[in-house]
Amino acid sequence: MDDFVDKTIAEQNLRMSLRALNSMSKSELVAQEIIGRIQSGDFKKDTCLPSEKELSEDLGVGRSTVREAVKQLVVQNILEIRRGKGTFISSTPGMIADPFGLRFHSDKLRLGVDLCEIRLMIEPVLARNAALNATSEQVQMIRKAQSEVAEDVKENRHHEQSDIKFHSAIARCTQNSILPPLMRVITSGIPYLIKITDRALTAQAVETHQMVLDAIEAHDPKRAFEAMTLHLEQNKSALEQKISER
Amino acid sequence: MDDFVDKTIAEQNLRMSLRALNSMSKSELVAQEIIGRIQSGDFKKDTCLPSEKELSEDLGVGRSTVREAVKQLVVQNILEIRRGKGTFISSTPGMIADPFGLRFHSDKLRLGVDLCEIRLMIEPVLARNAALNATSEQVQMIRKAQSEVAEDVKENRHHEQSDIKFHSAIARCTQNSILPPLMRVITSGIPYLIKITDRALTAQAVETHQMVLDAIEAHDPKRAFEAMTLHLEQNKSALEQKISER
Repeated sequence: MDDFVDKTIAEQNLRMSLRALNSMSKSELVAQEIIGRIQSGDFKKDTCLPSEKELSEDLGVGRSTVREAVKQLVVQNILEIRRGKGTFISSTPGMIADPFGLRFHSDKLRLGVDLCEIRLMIEPVLARNAALNATSEQVQMIRKAQSEVAEDVKENRHHEQSDIKFHSAIARCTQNSILPPLMRVITSGIPYLIKITDRALTAQAVETHQMVLDAIEAHDPKRAFEAMTLHLEQNKSALEQKISER
Repeated sequence: MDDFVDKTIAEQNLRMSLRALNSMSKSELVAQEIIGRIQSGDFKKDTCLPSEKELSEDLGVGRSTVREAVKQLVVQNILEIRRGKGTFISSTPGMIADPFGLRFHSDKLRLGVDLCEIRLMIEPVLARNAALNATSEQVQMIRKAQSEVAEDVKENRHHEQSDIKFHSAIARCTQNSILPPLMRVITSGIPYLIKITDRALTAQAVETHQMVLDAIEAHDPKRAFEAMTLHLEQNKSALEQKISER
């Protein structure tokens, strides 16, 4: 079975590549070659890319073709320009700021509810996990983020970033490599949520954050799960209320 | 509060824009302008972009600058070239094939386990929802996908695509706009999972798929949740087994 699958997958890839190759420009081919070298470990994350001149000689293409390929890869955060330092392989290649194109959604309220629904599937599980497995350093990070939120709210400052930090600190109690980019997507609605809801929800948020923190500190997984669920349900209801009012 | 937040967010945006503008090339500015017009609804999804000549005159920049901007936007799937038809606003602007850069993960087994963990947070909830809310047409789609999986496996054909179709059909029983791109990410490990595990798991998968389908057809949310959990736990265990063997 394995052999069968391997063989036919290889055939598929070959067919795909041939078709793809035919329609690719030179700069796209160079971009693919650079991607391949990152994947193989030839080019390592967070290190400097060889110079335009070196790449151009190595690959037998003009320097403008290399420049064009580099531009395409920078847009995708596969390469990044570091000012005064040169072009580097990104430390998180291929992870972009808005990978699902959320900025193109026209109905922001609806989008906010959709994000809450996804957060309700993920974050209570993460809170439960934190209550079970967080190290004392990790609990300390969550506590610190919550103090920042409370302080920001008290001082009438923005608390978007401290709020995101609180949720991310809980997510970081797992080693799952998909969570960092996923959390970035699903918490991207927080600034908007804060903007369109009023101070009542903010006070409520500080309170339910505290309940989550208390449960994690008490190593009580069930309570942590429920507190995070309550916190997110409140957010979702506030958005649904706004939808019903329009 | 709302006013306060609005005002300071606007100030932040302004500061950000000025800083960003200074470091942007002409083509990036044109790209940002096109993005803005899509967001405002001036340029509509799935319609043809004005010609290079028109854009160049409209924006007061050279045609090569417009061409450069269009290339950058095509790489991000904000625009797409349709052969023989021209350049279009994408129907799903900004959604790209591998938005989390999973192809750059070197440890594919570990990545497979991480994907299973995320799927375990999301897909049992989706199965429960399908049992509660699926229309008869939606149930029909899930049933059809499951027949295709069973048929593919019986005939020794690839079942990666029918397997992904089964899971996506269940996800489509909600209207959540984040789920389509999210499902594409989290099911992207399925072909790899099928490749590295053996026929035993495949037979098991057909069986547990059937349990999920039966529960959805019986409108039994608890059983649907549990069957999907079992299905994904089996996948995860198979991958963990492979990790322990290396």
